[in-house]
Amino acid sequence: MSLPPEFALIARHFRGLAGEGALDLSDDAALLAPPPGRELVLAADAMVEGVHYLPDDPPETIGRKLLRVNLSDLAAMGAEPLAYLMTTALPRGTTAEWLEGFAAGLAADQREFGLQVLGGDTVSIPGPACLSLTILGTVPPGLALRRNGARAGDDLWVSGTIGDGALGLAVLQGRAPADAAGHLARRYRLPEPRLALGRALRGLAHAAMDVSDGLAQDLGHLCRASNLGAMLELGSIPLSEPARGFIQDDATWLPRLATGGDDYELLFAADPADAARILAAADAAGTPVARIGRFTLGAPGVTVLGPDGQAMALPRGGWSHF
Amino acid sequence: MSLPPEFALIARHFRGLAGEGALDLSDDAALLAPPPGRELVLAADAMVEGVHYLPDDPPETIGRKLLRVNLSDLAAMGAEPLAYLMTTALPRGTTAEWLEGFAAGLAADQREFGLQVLGGDTVSIPGPACLSLTILGTVPPGLALRRNGARAGDDLWVSGTIGDGALGLAVLQGRAPADAAGHLARRYRLPEPRLALGRALRGLAHAAMDVSDGLAQDLGHLCRASNLGAMLELGSIPLSEPARGFIQDDATWLPRLATGGDDYELLFAADPADAARILAAADAAGTPVARIGRFTLGAPGVTVLGPDGQAMALPRGGWSHF
Repeated sequence: MSLPPEFALIARHFRGLAGEGALDLSDDAALLAPPPGRELVLAADAMVEGVHYLPDDPPETIGRKLLRVNLSDLAAMGAEPLAYLMTTALPRGTTAEWLEGFAAGLAADQREFGLQVLGGDTVSIPGPACLSLTILGTVPPGLALRRNGARAGDDLWVSGTIGDGALGLAVLQGRAPADAAGHLARRYRLPEPRLALGRALRGLAHAAMDVSDGLAQDLGHLCRASNLGAMLELGSIPLSEPARGFIQDDATWLPRLATGGDDYELLFAADPADAARILAAADAAGTPVARIGRFTLGAPGVTVLGPDGQAMALPRGGWSHF
Repeated sequence: MSLPPEFALIARHFRGLAGEGALDLSDDAALLAPPPGRELVLAADAMVEGVHYLPDDPPETIGRKLLRVNLSDLAAMGAEPLAYLMTTALPRGTTAEWLEGFAAGLAADQREFGLQVLGGDTVSIPGPACLSLTILGTVPPGLALRRNGARAGDDLWVSGTIGDGALGLAVLQGRAPADAAGHLARRYRLPEPRLALGRALRGLAHAAMDVSDGLAQDLGHLCRASNLGAMLELGSIPLSEPARGFIQDDATWLPRLATGGDDYELLFAADPADAARILAAADAAGTPVARIGRFTLGAPGVTVLGPDGQAMALPRGGWSHF
């Protein structure tokens, strides 16, 4: 009896990615001896073709983005990567070249971030590709960063720059002119999980999360989890050089960048007295951070201050699937 | 800022399913202190609307099947359920009633099998629903059942009955007449993970796997993993009352049932000297088992013996996605 194609597909493209406990991806399940003295951190994110990535994105970056959006969840918890499981629902016309690129992207990021695949499933779908990844990480017990620990008076910080992912998508969809160096499209396709910063914030940040659905909306989640209000200073949001160019040409981009998705930066709360320690930790992690507001007593919710210091309304509340 | 619908959806339908470490499904990831002195067992299976279940299947059984096909992988490893993560990619038209039924099915099986959801993701898809579940279980270290331990001369056993799932699908698609009691459709929609049997086989079976893509094809996997041949006695395959009725009317059903999918029974190898212990373990687990062949030296592959004892070819090699 010859092997049917999906087994050949798994053997050819995915077996080389497998970690020790994956049993060559040829058993019913994987085995994992949990690292002693550590707590497990688990998250799962799905990506759908045409929703979370563009059909003509390079397969390498699709594989890497799938891993990175999940790594970003580990970063937000201050966790270190351990392993992952992945299910891929692929249209029947998926080519070997696409699969090679997708697996090569996963392989590159496995090496970069130090984790391996433990198992998964490969099935067909009469529709767009649907990719799902479950990631496992570890933290020292009790030290995971959470969303619910912010305190009134805490500074609000964010890592990296905001809005590049949303601008990159606009560029790729022809809704905005491209930047010369392709920085924006790259930021959309290849988010940077802030793992080193997340680890450095353990025991220092009072609360943290990753920004994936828009800064203002995600800050609202942090507020609700911590039962606090927050002031967000639009003029303090860190922007890349290309993003600043867009805003110079059209000031209405600024509020739109604060509600666009695909940032995958860390948003966190810390005692103002710890500002110097935060900056030192960020420096050691090689990730810039900026103070963009503060947490306040009051009903959970976000007050946005425009560059003129006046409260203002944002255009929309972030990305929603339904 | 009002909550966008997917957060309301998660809060309304899925939060009640969440386990202790799920952090109310409102953090970036879940926390899990691994049970001390146990090895983790991990598997992930995806189900696509129209491929793994029928669009008009009741949402309750879709949720339960999603959990059960994964529980079946744990059963095949001799593991006990611990928790799961789930991603759902749903068409925008998905109704609240569908979600209520889907979540109610998950809730019922969480109670029946003793596990809870830890996290996941809910996204939209411009196509058929795509559901992915990652399951976590535990075993005492070193006692997981594997596929690669069968020995020449071992008996080949299978649990329950074979072919009901494939017949149930044929009934639901109008390709076969319905049985009076609806047993077959129910077996397609609601597989029975053989968890108690799997646990009872720890230290007793030499190799095990679950049958999901067709008995003959999956036996081929067991043969390759153990580097053995196998004789499969078609006439010894355990059949339900309705399946026997089909074969009485049309003998060509028998080989087709041996290659149909959706059985979710355990296929395992054991020393013939342990036959009485196997039967006692199966009896204690409340799951019937039948001896359906044996493992042989030689090139990996399955020789099928017809009811007349003569070697015969099967119609096709089982379900393939591509």
